[in-house]
Amino acid sequence: MQDLESLGMKKGLLYETIITTHNGNGVPNAAPIGVICKNKNEIVLNLFEGTHTLENIKTNSQFVVNILKDPLVFVGCTTGDLSSDHFKKHCDAFYIKNTDAFFTASVTRTKEIEKEDNISKSKMTIIKASVNEVIIKKESVEPLNRAIFAIIESLVYLTRIKMVDENTAKEYLERIHEMSRTVNRVGSLDHKKAMQNILKYIENN
Amino acid sequence: MQDLESLGMKKGLLYETIITTHNGNGVPNAAPIGVICKNKNEIVLNLFEGTHTLENIKTNSQFVVNILKDPLVFVGCTTGDLSSDHFKKHCDAFYIKNTDAFFTASVTRTKEIEKEDNISKSKMTIIKASVNEVIIKKESVEPLNRAIFAIIESLVYLTRIKMVDENTAKEYLERIHEMSRTVNRVGSLDHKKAMQNILKYIENN
Repeated sequence: MQDLESLGMKKGLLYETIITTHNGNGVPNAAPIGVICKNKNEIVLNLFEGTHTLENIKTNSQFVVNILKDPLVFVGCTTGDLSSDHFKKHCDAFYIKNTDAFFTASVTRTKEIEKEDNISKSKMTIIKASVNEVIIKKESVEPLNRAIFAIIESLVYLTRIKMVDENTAKEYLERIHEMSRTVNRVGSLDHKKAMQNILKYIENN
Repeated sequence: MQDLESLGMKKGLLYETIITTHNGNGVPNAAPIGVICKNKNEIVLNLFEGTHTLENIKTNSQFVVNILKDPLVFVGCTTGDLSSDHFKKHCDAFYIKNTDAFFTASVTRTKEIEKEDNISKSKMTIIKASVNEVIIKKESVEPLNRAIFAIIESLVYLTRIKMVDENTAKEYLERIHEMSRTVNRVGSLDHKKAMQNILKYIENN
């Protein structure tokens, strides 16, 4: 049987996905959501209070996770411009028509928390869900994880940091630290180790 | 016969790769280099004067492009910490042992230019090369392109821009414009269109 491993998802990593849900009247919704792979049959999401995705998941206890890299779908979901012809029905649920793969999931536990960062304090709900059906639609599927990108960005800054004035160098260093926080949140042990090597190199040079 | 299409490389996109070369004494070198796919049998690179990669390519007229995502290899190449046991021989050339795929390439044309950006003026050499042998070592290979990540980063800033003070919002907007420049340099038409949709949304909201 196919599971998250079949999709290339690895335990502990956070992937950028599009989650599709529908409300009580069957109106579909799509939103870009980070999905943490807990093991090959279980995921966790942190959802902000007041979003359609959370409301719909509370109503149905079920949702669909789409694995894709179409930039127009990611942007369309965020700006609210995704037209209804992007959705396709699968049993009672909806998925994104041109997705590389998708899976259906059922909520097993929810927990409300307050999250505070440097911008604001927000109510969030942590959703734990089990994976049901996994459907692969394209030959080669790779879920989207931001860690390697954050490392490449950091390397670009690293190679330039000696060529710029002091203020710009400080800014680059701040960006590298920001990328490091991203890697710690979404990456694997190897990603975290690579990021530590970058920080060590900066300290010694 | 396998070509760049077999590796999932698309015409016009720039991919983050590791290029392996060797000097006149057979000492191998590895460096992270952006490779532009011109068509399924041809690539272009822009190399800075004074790098080992350029010197070695001038000596041998041949090089190897490694398609991989190992963060420790990317960092090790940049910081100069990649140990010699990472290299493996293939005929006269070297590739990275744990690479997902690699191909050998022969220089067909070179052109020296001066490049000026907001940081500095540098001498560069544009290398045009034809693809020889393509070797795929892992079941699923996807070359690393930064465009979708730049779009995801922009969307993260976009969703926060209304929640922060004016100065931070300006900074976020500058980052989105920086990401837009990356997308224009490395991405596909769809990536560029998606980025334009983000900029249009910001203008109208």
